[in-house]
Amino acid sequence: MKRIPFSDVEITGGFWKTVQDRNRDVTLECVRRQFELTGRFDALRCDWREGMPNKPHIFWDSDVAKWAESAAYVLKKHPDEALERRVEDMIDRIEQNQRPDGYFNSCYQSLEPGNRFTNRWNHELYCAGHWTEAAIAYYEATGKRRFLDLICRYIDLIDRVFRVEQSASFLTPGHEEIELALLKLYVCTGEEKYRDLSLFFLNERGTENGKDEETASPAGMYMQAHLPVREQKTAEGHSVRACYLYSAMADAARLTGDVKLREACEALFDNIYERRMYITGGIGSSHDGERFTGDYDLPNADAYAETCAAISLAMFASRMSLLSPEGKYADVVERALYNGILSGVSLDGTSFFYTNPLEIDLGTRRANACREHAYRPLTHRVEVFGCSCCPPNVTRFFASLGDLVCSRSADTVFVHQYMPSTVRVGDGTLCMQTNYPDDGTVRVTAKGLKGQKLALRVPAWCREYKLDSEASMQNGYLLTDVPSDDFSCTLTLSVKPVFYEASPLVAADAGKVALAKGPVVYCLEGLDNDGDLHGLCVDLFEPVEESANEELHVPMLTVKGWKKHACACCGGPLYRPASGDYRPARLRFIPYYAFANRAETDMTVWVTKF
Amino acid sequence: MKRIPFSDVEITGGFWKTVQDRNRDVTLECVRRQFELTGRFDALRCDWREGMPNKPHIFWDSDVAKWAESAAYVLKKHPDEALERRVEDMIDRIEQNQRPDGYFNSCYQSLEPGNRFTNRWNHELYCAGHWTEAAIAYYEATGKRRFLDLICRYIDLIDRVFRVEQSASFLTPGHEEIELALLKLYVCTGEEKYRDLSLFFLNERGTENGKDEETASPAGMYMQAHLPVREQKTAEGHSVRACYLYSAMADAARLTGDVKLREACEALFDNIYERRMYITGGIGSSHDGERFTGDYDLPNADAYAETCAAISLAMFASRMSLLSPEGKYADVVERALYNGILSGVSLDGTSFFYTNPLEIDLGTRRANACREHAYRPLTHRVEVFGCSCCPPNVTRFFASLGDLVCSRSADTVFVHQYMPSTVRVGDGTLCMQTNYPDDGTVRVTAKGLKGQKLALRVPAWCREYKLDSEASMQNGYLLTDVPSDDFSCTLTLSVKPVFYEASPLVAADAGKVALAKGPVVYCLEGLDNDGDLHGLCVDLFEPVEESANEELHVPMLTVKGWKKHACACCGGPLYRPASGDYRPARLRFIPYYAFANRAETDMTVWVTKF
Repeated sequence: MKRIPFSDVEITGGFWKTVQDRNRDVTLECVRRQFELTGRFDALRCDWREGMPNKPHIFWDSDVAKWAESAAYVLKKHPDEALERRVEDMIDRIEQNQRPDGYFNSCYQSLEPGNRFTNRWNHELYCAGHWTEAAIAYYEATGKRRFLDLICRYIDLIDRVFRVEQSASFLTPGHEEIELALLKLYVCTGEEKYRDLSLFFLNERGTENGKDEETASPAGMYMQAHLPVREQKTAEGHSVRACYLYSAMADAARLTGDVKLREACEALFDNIYERRMYITGGIGSSHDGERFTGDYDLPNADAYAETCAAISLAMFASRMSLLSPEGKYADVVERALYNGILSGVSLDGTSFFYTNPLEIDLGTRRANACREHAYRPLTHRVEVFGCSCCPPNVTRFFASLGDLVCSRSADTVFVHQYMPSTVRVGDGTLCMQTNYPDDGTVRVTAKGLKGQKLALRVPAWCREYKLDSEASMQNGYLLTDVPSDDFSCTLTLSVKPVFYEASPLVAADAGKVALAKGPVVYCLEGLDNDGDLHGLCVDLFEPVEESANEELHVPMLTVKGWKKHACACCGGPLYRPASGDYRPARLRFIPYYAFANRAETDMTVWVTKF
Repeated sequence: MKRIPFSDVEITGGFWKTVQDRNRDVTLECVRRQFELTGRFDALRCDWREGMPNKPHIFWDSDVAKWAESAAYVLKKHPDEALERRVEDMIDRIEQNQRPDGYFNSCYQSLEPGNRFTNRWNHELYCAGHWTEAAIAYYEATGKRRFLDLICRYIDLIDRVFRVEQSASFLTPGHEEIELALLKLYVCTGEEKYRDLSLFFLNERGTENGKDEETASPAGMYMQAHLPVREQKTAEGHSVRACYLYSAMADAARLTGDVKLREACEALFDNIYERRMYITGGIGSSHDGERFTGDYDLPNADAYAETCAAISLAMFASRMSLLSPEGKYADVVERALYNGILSGVSLDGTSFFYTNPLEIDLGTRRANACREHAYRPLTHRVEVFGCSCCPPNVTRFFASLGDLVCSRSADTVFVHQYMPSTVRVGDGTLCMQTNYPDDGTVRVTAKGLKGQKLALRVPAWCREYKLDSEASMQNGYLLTDVPSDDFSCTLTLSVKPVFYEASPLVAADAGKVALAKGPVVYCLEGLDNDGDLHGLCVDLFEPVEESANEELHVPMLTVKGWKKHACACCGGPLYRPASGDYRPARLRFIPYYAFANRAETDMTVWVTKF
């Protein structure tokens, strides 16, 4: 199976073109400006000294690199001289300050030049990985090699210090990322040493007890160094670290044919998919350690569900699609995409969530304002964070969204995600016309692909579908032959709103249901539902009406339900015999991705069932 | 309204006699032995020096004092030479080590004799208050004045330092308790200076901004020093501190006729009763600060609900009964008594809960074992705690349980709590025969009380009742005349099991119900219900069957319900369309007070409603 890169995919309209245009026109510049204001670009001068403002931080190189990677993806599609000049300025600073041996890390060079490669927790290799991804993206976008060459010199140094000489104070990264970047660099340059360095990091991980005491400690699990990677079967520790690692493992398994590595990836994916993922595609339920906890532990109001974690899950899942064409992988990509990733950015593209809770209860928050150590997810998006990994992760992800749409094997073109688009497939093209996800009809036209097969994903959420062409179902894909060089077929997926329940093992969702239409999970906001949400119950037997939320310009789903009468002003008994004392209510749902775009208000994805 | 003290009340059989006998025969000695083993009695020698084991702690005097108070209550009813000798030994140590000016605090005298009365947080006045309560109890039990005289000398010193000279580094206690003890001492000795010192502490509280910066800070709210006491309308801060304070306020309002103080007590009580109390009578929902949080914030699995807090609420509520004969006060006493206090001790009387959660989910606990800062209530009782305030609070409370049964005004005998008992009322007696709470029939016989009225509480949970005598209902009490000197009447309260719901404003209980029979709240344990409890739903339209749990020798309630099928072994989808895929199940409830008396298992009070 081979990727069909975003450069071969033109998103021509619809839901994601709107997001992608906004990402390019608004969000990318918002992120850049905040990074400028906070000194992240200045830090690349490597001249910060005590007493100056904006002390560089160990994460900052990665922030700037992800912005540059995003810019490169944008440039690939939309040449823009001003933007390119900004990237070039950034590259100038790297070139001017790179050490003679290739080392470049603005934080270490400013703050503690003598201590490079001595502290596994300080994100040096993580930053190097992000520089690598940015340099590859810029080279592929512009054809200019300067950035790539600079970074290859740095990677060559890392290869020597870590793999050849093993002279660093630690053996493998404390925050995985570089492993997947190195495999990209191998594919981009054809240089096997980059693949080998990636495999070295993967193979040494969790095996180095004698060499690095951290791996035997709880910290070892936090960074997935508790076991050799091929023996890891449950998703553990910091969830972004985890899925970046698993992404590299999936790529390595594909590029090397390593069966044990593939099996580990499958087990890890299934553990997340079956037990450790929010209905929004969010992962890493615990604020403490930003980590996976255990099976079925998915609290809603306290959900961490970092935006970067949902992105990392989509990265892992899309790589699994390339390893093995099972529909569940693209299902998870889709779930994260329309929900837990998209919720990370405001509807106007200017502000961001780091964490994405599935419930906001302002009353409980106020009640607990006195608690010093309580975790409280933000209830509104902000422009930048101290640790601002999510915003540029969003921009690079949306700018390269086309990567997720299709892939191909020797004889089959797989369509994973549905959106209006034109996809170059070798000498042919595949064209999709659709209003997905508002509507489930997708017209697919394949030109110049005679003799190939089309594999059209039927999402697991879809219970009724039809294709106007003879087809067989295989692993979640409808397979149909392309009999001519100008072939069209129409897939119709039912996107009727459906109420979902969670496994009864999920304590947090007991007795509750969530509403989704197609891949889009909905939620209730207090603003649309007269404030308090706890007294509301949905009636599963009532029809769901579709309309639009005029304020937010997003779809709205309305269903008749019931509300327990709460008399906050006059008190009323705190406990009373269970009664049928409900009043009729209309429950108004908006897409989860659109929550918190107005005033501060209560929100819930999971609603009590009548 | 006047107290009828436990010394005038003989509990002759039934539910509470069992508890009281066990408390006397088992628990009191268990507590003493643990305090002996941990060095708490030795500490009274005031000779601890660096390098010795069992370094004294600022709480320890209060632990020992509460044990001695418990012993005194037991001695009042059951003379016991050995026990009395143990208390005398303890008093010897106090006498031997009391400072010439009356000061006695074993921790300060051992560790920092020069620093007395310099640190508001160090519980000196709290310990002095508990010594006072113990000394009064021992004097009233034995008629021996030595202990009382020693403690009066100490209190006289406190009066001089705090009220007269105001020479201490702080003005009012950091942990309230002494206020209520001083009012007891005033009643016991008739010395008005003790009342005045109590009123001084009450009146200065929260007014001393200029003198004590802590009162203006969050710490001020933690110790109820954020406002003058008459201006406090919501229950705030550390819940045990709060209810000890409110208890003193209620006594002071009764003894002085202070209307503003009474009104503050009423507002504080109503705030707890209507918005901040678990269905078990537990209060202080937050582990962080052991405190009240805000209205309707009553999480179940994370409930703190300290045993001492439920006791302190019963203390406050029973004092409110004396201020104003409204049924809700004795209702709350009853709720705490049968649930959140009784759950604090094991069925065999040997071990204790400090916190009393309303839900235990072992899966979530295991999943979060990696979280360093997560609060996890104990899932089994233990013999002693580092801060072991609860065990001796339980023993003194149960030993003096008779205090709660009746009270009297000029012309009326109020019956607050129903239990087989003989109560001396002046020259008459009142006798109750009942199997309450298993059965709701109470036969009341009044001898020598002709011309008085009887006021029999009808609990708020009771929707059907009858009295075979002409009566009027007033504030939750049935009032009936006593026409002769040998009068009997029979009150029948329906104790049919009832499902309760919480106010819709309680987020944690949305869509759930709790089962109670009379005052006894029930719960599900995994052991009786095939493990996992989240998939269970109760059907409110099915009859509740009453039987016995043979293992625990407690009542059991069984009701038909449903269970969502969970296939933990084979995975199964994490999210699926909401379905009617329930299997019939029998839900077996045991009293909440009996939970965690077998193996470690899941538990829940609130259950999903079908």
